[in-house]
Amino acid sequence: MPILPEPVQNLITAFERLPGIGPKTASRLAFHLLRATNDSAQQLADALAALKSATGLCQVCFNITLAGQSVCDICGSSQRDEAQVCVVEEPLDVVALERTGGFTGRYHVLHGVLSPIEGIGPDDLKIRPLIERVKAGSVREVILATNPSMEGDATALYLRQQLLPLNVRVTRLARGLPVGGDLEYADQNTLLRALSGRQEMTN
Amino acid sequence: MPILPEPVQNLITAFERLPGIGPKTASRLAFHLLRATNDSAQQLADALAALKSATGLCQVCFNITLAGQSVCDICGSSQRDEAQVCVVEEPLDVVALERTGGFTGRYHVLHGVLSPIEGIGPDDLKIRPLIERVKAGSVREVILATNPSMEGDATALYLRQQLLPLNVRVTRLARGLPVGGDLEYADQNTLLRALSGRQEMTN
Repeated sequence: MPILPEPVQNLITAFERLPGIGPKTASRLAFHLLRATNDSAQQLADALAALKSATGLCQVCFNITLAGQSVCDICGSSQRDEAQVCVVEEPLDVVALERTGGFTGRYHVLHGVLSPIEGIGPDDLKIRPLIERVKAGSVREVILATNPSMEGDATALYLRQQLLPLNVRVTRLARGLPVGGDLEYADQNTLLRALSGRQEMTN
Repeated sequence: MPILPEPVQNLITAFERLPGIGPKTASRLAFHLLRATNDSAQQLADALAALKSATGLCQVCFNITLAGQSVCDICGSSQRDEAQVCVVEEPLDVVALERTGGFTGRYHVLHGVLSPIEGIGPDDLKIRPLIERVKAGSVREVILATNPSMEGDATALYLRQQLLPLNVRVTRLARGLPVGGDLEYADQNTLLRALSGRQEMTN
């Protein structure tokens, strides 16, 4: 006989499919919801159901936006400098950069990175629309903010090659020691990058 | 302007309410579902919606069962010894014990532990039905399998006092070194319990 009733097992299975959620966590979540008031399971169910139907992609930068809104708030804002475009891998990266409060330009979300192993080429990402955007003329600087990983670097390199002929400044986020980090625990590559990227101290 | 569209923020908030899920994990899950095919978010939503409506509690042992099924599979099975009742805190504990395959009796789920600090007394748990079950006469042994924690021990002690007058054998799960564990890393209390509970070796 099965140990768990089917509805509980179904929920555990659905949770287990999420990234970073193993069998133990999935059961814990399911049993938590079973014990909780009716509301919390229903709220989660409603939020999930609304997720896809109520969201879409910005037609300019491909960030997540409300369904029916063709241009996102950032692309639609006159406060944001259209001459600077920051290229990121995922919508979550936009959230991270916005939280810093230090960027006043606009974004372009690639929705992935080049990865020959996984068969992801330039046409699988939002690269062509980026080129078109730059060709349109108002962009002066493209900041490549893909992750400092092998794929992120390769994607940045590819984008640089594509963008340079278009007479636009192409920059990449700085590498170095993380703020609050400890030199002793920095890995070799980070330390090398911090050394080679050292800057003049100005009082 | 808000950084995230409302439907995405709603889902993140709903995930954050779950135990062990912080803001970072909640965003990661929400954006994973946003990127995934329509199915996985919908499957999770359906499983959540079905959870409460399709499940109920067994009227004998208070384990989770299918809605409309008044007695669970274990309590309804003639294969399971009704003379042995294993008392656990939560339905998940039944799953853990069933996985061992080493118990052929039945269960009783308390749905919590006594906790004066949180205001949980005997009447908030399924203690009275347990006493009634034992009074009915067919139970010979009650195995107290509440957690080896302060509250679990206190609850076991309370149950023992209530059960002893009923002329039933009351046992508690053994304490000692976990199998595969390392004596060097065992905490002091576990080691003390392992010492005081030492047993004769029989080849």
